[in-house]
Parts: sequence; C-alpha cells; structure tokens
Amino acid sequence: MSKFHLFPPDRVHHTWARDNEPVLEVDPGDTVFYETRDATNNQVQRDTTAEELSNLNWETFYPLAGPLYVRGAEPGDALAIDILDVQHRGWGWTGILPDAGVLPDEFPDPHIRIWDTCDGEYAYMNDFVRVPIDPFPGVMGVPADVEGELTPMPPRHVGGNMDCRHLTAGTTLYLPVEVEGGLFSLGDGHLAQGDGEVCVSAIEGDLGISCRFDVIKNLELAAPELETPPGSLTPFGDEQGFFATMGVADDLMVATRDAVRNMVQRIVQMYGLSREDAYMLASVAADLKITEVVDPNWIVALYMPKAAFLREPPEMHRLSCR
Amino acid sequence: MSKFHLFPPDRVHHTWARDNEPVLEVDPGDTVFYETRDATNNQVQRDTTAEELSNLNWETFYPLAGPLYVRGAEPGDALAIDILDVQHRGWGWTGILPDAGVLPDEFPDPHIRIWDTCDGEYAYMNDFVRVPIDPFPGVMGVPADVEGELTPMPPRHVGGNMDCRHLTAGTTLYLPVEVEGGLFSLGDGHLAQGDGEVCVSAIEGDLGISCRFDVIKNLELAAPELETPPGSLTPFGDEQGFFATMGVADDLMVATRDAVRNMVQRIVQMYGLSREDAYMLASVAADLKITEVVDPNWIVALYMPKAAFLREPPEMHRLSCR
Repeated sequence: MSKFHLFPPDRVHHTWARDNEPVLEVDPGDTVFYETRDATNNQVQRDTTAEELSNLNWETFYPLAGPLYVRGAEPGDALAIDILDVQHRGWGWTGILPDAGVLPDEFPDPHIRIWDTCDGEYAYMNDFVRVPIDPFPGVMGVPADVEGELTPMPPRHVGGNMDCRHLTAGTTLYLPVEVEGGLFSLGDGHLAQGDGEVCVSAIEGDLGISCRFDVIKNLELAAPELETPPGSLTPFGDEQGFFATMGVADDLMVATRDAVRNMVQRIVQMYGLSREDAYMLASVAADLKITEVVDPNWIVALYMPKAAFLREPPEMHRLSCR
Repeated sequence: MSKFHLFPPDRVHHTWARDNEPVLEVDPGDTVFYETRDATNNQVQRDTTAEELSNLNWETFYPLAGPLYVRGAEPGDALAIDILDVQHRGWGWTGILPDAGVLPDEFPDPHIRIWDTCDGEYAYMNDFVRVPIDPFPGVMGVPADVEGELTPMPPRHVGGNMDCRHLTAGTTLYLPVEVEGGLFSLGDGHLAQGDGEVCVSAIEGDLGISCRFDVIKNLELAAPELETPPGSLTPFGDEQGFFATMGVADDLMVATRDAVRNMVQRIVQMYGLSREDAYMLASVAADLKITEVVDPNWIVALYMPKAAFLREPPEMHRLSCR
C-alpha cells in the first residue's frame, strides 16, 4: 500500500552530490509533502530593499529539500514524479539583480517588487497589473554520477534549477537516474513565471508541494522530459489573447534579447509602466517561443497575455503610437 | 468606404527590393484577397519523389504576391495587417532537405511526405497520426530601405519568411514601414506548423488569404509585432495535454538540437514511427519554448500534443521503455 510522507522541513542541502546522505526513503507509489523556502532561504522579506537584495548571502541560496531515496531506482532507470498539488504561502517577490537576466547592460541596478496576493488567485503588481498564481518548484532534480559537489544554480541533464513553468500540479516530470535511489530534491518556489524567466527571477516564494514518485525501469533519458495534463498551458493568455514582440537574428540569444527589449518598450509605451516593472512583468508573465530556427535568420518571440492589464491602452487593437 | 481587391494571382516576385514596382494600390481599411502558390512555386506535386525534392529549381522558389502599395504609409509608420481568413487548397507536403533543418547531420537524405487532408479539418500522416489544419502564410513582409535585391529565404527586421505559426486568421501583424507605401508582399502557404519548424518545412501548400490593411502613423517598430485574438494558441494540444523533451546547454542552438533529437527518439519509441516521420511530425506539430534563459545553463523544450496520436502508446502516462 502506498504511503504518505512529510519531508522534514529543516533538512535542506545546497549542492548536488551523489554522496549526499538521503534524508527519507520511500517506495514507488508513495507521496511526499514538502514545505519549501524561497531561493534566497528567506533572506528576502516583505520589507527587503533593492540595496539589500543585491547584498544577500549567496552561500545559503537554494535550500533544497532532499535527498529522497526511491527504492528500486537504479542507474539507467527514470524517476517519474507526479506533481499532485502546489500551494503558495501568501506573498512573493521579483527582483532584478546586477549582471543577471537577459538585458544586464540595460538594467544594471537592483530592483525589487513585492507582489500582493491577497485574493489568493492573482498576484498584483499595482492597481491595474496582475498575474494569475500558478505555482511550481523552480528546482527539481537528482545528482549526476560525477565526483564532488555541484552548485545548484545551473540546471543539467539530470534536472535541477530548470525553472520550467509547466511543472505545475497535474504535470509529470521524468528524470534520468544516475545514482542508486535517484536522490531527488526540490525547492526554489515560484508563484508564477513566464517561459524564459527573462529578468532572472519569477514571483519567488515559499511553497507547499505534494509529489508522488515512481520508477520506470530501463528508460534511459538524455535529459528531463515532462507530460502535462489536458487543458491549456496558458489559460490566462487565452482569455483575451496575446501581444508579441520579435527578435530576428542569426543568433538565438541576440534574438531573445531583442524580443525582450522590444517587449519592455511596448509595455512602457502602451501602459505607462516603469522600464523595470515592464521587465519584471515580462519575466513573470510572458512566454518566449522559438518561432522558427531554420530560415536561416532565426526568430524568437515573446508573448504577453493582454489579460494582465486591467486598464485598456488608448487603442487596444492598434499598438499605442504616442 | 473601404474596398475589396483581388490581387492578380499571376503577379509574383522573388526578391525583396525597395525599387520593386507596386502591383496594386489600396487605401487604409481596404481588404485584399490573395491566391498563393506554395514555396516551391508548385514544383512539388502529389507524386514528387524525395529525389526530385532535392533537385528543385530554387530560383523560382518563394513566389511572393506583391508588392502592395498602401496609401499614406511612410517611413517611420507601421503597417497593421489584419489576417481575416486563410483557406487551404486540399493537400500539403512536408520535406526533409539535405543540409537544412536543425539536425542536418542526422538526417542527410531527402524525404517527402504528402499529407491527406480529405476531411478538410485534419492533415493525416498515416492511419493514426494527424495534425489539425491551421493555415497561415509563412512569408509576410516589406522591403527594407537598402540598395539592391535581397533573397526571400531569411526573415529580417521588416518581416519576410517569418514562419510564425500564430499568423493565422484573427491575428494582426505589425510591420515597420521603411519605403513609401510599405510595399507589402506575402506567400509560402503553410497548412500547419509547430513553433520552430525544426525539420525546415511545415505542411506546405497553396492558400487563399484575405488581409485588411491599416497604417499607424509614427509608430517606429524595431521588428515585427503581432496581436492574437482571444482563445488558445494551442487548442489541439489542450485536448489531451502535451509531452515535452528538453535540451539543457549553455548555448540555445545546442539546447534546441538536443530537445529535437530527444523528441524524435521519444516519438519513435512510443509510437513506432520512422525517424524521418517523427522529425517531420515534430516540425509541423510540436512547439519550441525557451524554458529559461538565465540560470546560466539554458533550457529549450519541445512540446508535442498527445492528440496527434489516435493510437495510445503502451502506457500513455509512463513514457514507453521498450
């Protein structure tokens, strides 16, 4: 019979390593409930200033809840993680950090924005900009079978800090197992994020997360895979449609930067937000798509849901030209 | 009063040039109906072989319907193009071409697939794989204000061969005007395509297209922008959800290639398609998203609608491990 486990919330680690001691052992089919702290290990509070944000202690960043040992998981298998439920804890923050994000030269100074989530359904940036709360763990992963300790910041072929916004309740994540038991960990709660996370942060916050674990024998994965449930990946955008900016270049990163820069300008022009707020909003609500990658200039486009704005621009269907 | 124009179907051009003579002049608010030939100028027919596909005459590729002169459009303005209606002409084809697509080393040989569209709603690859027809012109653009003639293959900041799958009926495209009258052209009909067009082609075919034109004075655009109508961008995927593969790398193109390679393998493993069919199916039905681009390994993921498959894999919710 499958069991329910509470992961001890004080047991966190800050590096990926095959030698990390498992904190909890479960059987395939078991469910684990986690309470996770935000990526800064709660160094950011509601009254944190931008100045303070850029002077945090990075050594305690990414408190990862784990490792979890799943019985029967062996190298060459895949771990299947059903994300059953994700709950937020009432507030979140978004920041711009120096030398981070896709436009570091254009946003050299730190900024922070605390999101009001009082109605439990939306995070409000101000009285006319809002984003639906759609929470997920930014980090889900296992250690690779390599020596030593690896930092938690970059994701790898075994997952980690993937910041994949579709790892919400109902989705199943598949990870390659390289170490006996898998040694799965998660953390870095996000209340909402767009594909790309372009300014370097989502709406960051504490989460409660339930996952069910399973082992698929002899399924070799080169990288993480996932499977979403029926239903739109972008219900908020579907409400009123999207507006999208493009970057056209022979390099995907240049195209990405151009698309983001053009979106910041579009939001500022149409809705009068500050450039920093527009950048952060794009990071938490807009989705980067690769429109085409074969032509042989490539196009990256950033799609922003119109429903984020409760105030109409001067001419909703003719991009503002003031 | 706004007028309706039929664009003469025999008037096509094959290069972008500010000096191309306009074929038709319209007022803002006017609607134009186009009949367009496929990107190969109908060199591909229902009985074209893979061998023949790789020996086509590229000089007549991209027959572009245009140029259209929109009165009042001046440099520094934007052209707004409402895509009112797009109709397909009953069949389409998808090809793999040597030295093209994101995996040229792994798919060195030409392949062609003719899609059956007998029910008018879906294009069928075989008796259990289908894609909904969602037609759009791959090329929509204007010439840049530069000397000489430019080839139609790469898109530029003024549009062109954007292969943007959301330029379907109901969407508005915004293009920067660099030449008096704009000199808009379109062509390269696609019956269906995923974000990315990873194998180098969509479901290619002839189209009938209606567009309404407008001029927005003094709206300087750095690149094309667009605005979609309310409703899902991916209704087919929403039916049953998606499965997605990832690439994780410090280069977006490497990540893209990895995600595509992993998707080809996943489709082959789960559904028994040939590698070529899996690659072409990913090109016409799966969407490339940039999951995160700041972490600082980046993730590109390819999302495939489960609804494309009328036959269930051995275990729909546990990726096949045969």
